Amino acid sequence: RVGWISNIIVVVSPENTEKMKSIIEKYGHKRVTIVKGGRTRHRSIFNGLKVFAENQFSNHLLQKPEVVIIHDAVRPFVEEDIISKVVMAAKEHGAAGAIRPLVSTVIASAADGCLDHSLERARYRASEMPQAFLFDIIYKAYQQCTDYDLDYGTECLHLALKYCKTNAKLVEGTADLWKVTYKRDLYAAESIIKDSLSQHVCVITTGKEAVAQVRFLLQESLKSQITIEAISLSLSINDSHVQSSFSGQCYNFICINDNKYDIQETQQLVDMLEKSNIPVLYPIVLISVHLDISENISFHIGMEELTRIKKFARDVKNKNILVYSLLIQCK
Amino acid sequence: RVGWISNIIVVVSPENTEKMKSIIEKYGHKRVTIVKGGRTRHRSIFNGLKVFAENQFSNHLLQKPEVVIIHDAVRPFVEEDIISKVVMAAKEHGAAGAIRPLVSTVIASAADGCLDHSLERARYRASEMPQAFLFDIIYKAYQQCTDYDLDYGTECLHLALKYCKTNAKLVEGTADLWKVTYKRDLYAAESIIKDSLSQHVCVITTGKEAVAQVRFLLQESLKSQITIEAISLSLSINDSHVQSSFSGQCYNFICINDNKYDIQETQQLVDMLEKSNIPVLYPIVLISVHLDISENISFHIGMEELTRIKKFARDVKNKNILVYSLLIQCK
Repeated sequence: RVGWISNIIVVVSPENTEKMKSIIEKYGHKRVTIVKGGRTRHRSIFNGLKVFAENQFSNHLLQKPEVVIIHDAVRPFVEEDIISKVVMAAKEHGAAGAIRPLVSTVIASAADGCLDHSLERARYRASEMPQAFLFDIIYKAYQQCTDYDLDYGTECLHLALKYCKTNAKLVEGTADLWKVTYKRDLYAAESIIKDSLSQHVCVITTGKEAVAQVRFLLQESLKSQITIEAISLSLSINDSHVQSSFSGQCYNFICINDNKYDIQETQQLVDMLEKSNIPVLYPIVLISVHLDISENISFHIGMEELTRIKKFARDVKNKNILVYSLLIQCK
Repeated sequence: RVGWISNIIVVVSPENTEKMKSIIEKYGHKRVTIVKGGRTRHRSIFNGLKVFAENQFSNHLLQKPEVVIIHDAVRPFVEEDIISKVVMAAKEHGAAGAIRPLVSTVIASAADGCLDHSLERARYRASEMPQAFLFDIIYKAYQQCTDYDLDYGTECLHLALKYCKTNAKLVEGTADLWKVTYKRDLYAAESIIKDSLSQHVCVITTGKEAVAQVRFLLQESLKSQITIEAISLSLSINDSHVQSSFSGQCYNFICINDNKYDIQETQQLVDMLEKSNIPVLYPIVLISVHLDISENISFHIGMEELTRIKKFARDVKNKNILVYSLLIQCK
């Protein structure tokens, strides 16, 4: 997803290695090396770093990078912007990490389980991921750190400070960097994905001027809420412009035309969507709109044809494509 | 919901007072007094406490309690158990509050936006709500605290420590005490409510021995996953036992009988559910199961009757009751 990252090291517990391999294969991820995790966070990260410096984990030593980014899989919504910011800050300062304001006050408890003192919330921050480091700094820090650090520590920025005297630059991150920890966080993550999928619509139009007008009105009324990509086709559906749209990250399609409803045409679109592999990840919504603007012929659809359309939609649903048909009379 | 709480003071910003009044009326909440909030957290809490000590906020002074519980509306999933624990601890120690482990490491930043130091995560806790105090202690603390405390402070336990030398007892809370802060937290909250609603089913059976057997099998196969309450009726639906079930917190009903499908019977149930006011809060699911166990007569339902059932279900949906009918042949 981010072109300027040369290698991605995924540190995985031994029992999940096969599963991770199949995920990488299924979704066609590139530039990925799998490394066996350790029994603690720091031991796992250290294993990942060793791929660039020692020969023990992979057949071919990967080229040592200038800057290395450390990220958690439990923060799936990281944006390129924050990755870029921590990398630039790490180049300048040697280390950098994303932070967020504290949501709750942090307190220290005494040995008897009573309050010892509370921290002034405004002076502290939650340390989040991603973090970035000059490779030589973080690798040196891990080489020098003690077994106690490796077993009980949680903070990479702390290691860079303790062993390399590097004060990391702190970069304000977005709310979406939160750590998916509890079951409720899975619910939240699911809803965020659904929200973002619904923010981008591709409108495909074929046919006469009147159809283009409808598309224009649709764009005008929706553009403040969602991103609309418009494709106008004079010829057939099977156009290279549509093809390239299908390989993008759009999951919502509205096709507007002034033809009589024709299952063949919708079938063509569904075939192209299926070939694009997009519906493997998330369901696609395809709304087929038929404008009845002719003054002579009526688009009346009989019960038999309606039943055929319903059956078609039901079959296609199994391919993770949800088809809806609208017939609009506008005389 | 918690019987041993004598008074509930809801501190609301002036612009939301009317809305809060209508909520209290709509859901029939008792023992509630509304108080105008201040411009900061501490000023609002202080206003709430004054109801028990000064005459300025309400027409009649409420009786001063021994222990007062302070809670945030943004933590809607508080259980009676944790409330009770902090109250008992407050009685003994003068102050007590719920805590949770830290999810992220907490760090202090220097003036230049770089890392100053990081805290060892295991030694600190997030301070959550509810908190409880001997009324005299927390009220005295608020009376003594400075404008700086009132404007910039966030922690009630800190005030009790600073002004009354009271070291609060810290009580481990559940994960559901988290603070609904971001949009994603609303998604999570919605899912938690749905989850908990689906954990309790009321099974109503009428009719012969065979029906009771089916209920027994259903209970056996589901009891490890959900709580099942069983009601067996020899007579009609309109029974006081069912009535009392309906006034409880159950949102899922399965009615099993060996009669031919009869809309009147389902209608009776729907009427009782509607009268109970339960569907005002959340949708009710009512599954009507008809076992065809007779050897002579078949329960075959014609298209016309099916259409009538569908229409009935559609109408009832507007009352927030979702009706499903199952006809099971078991010969």
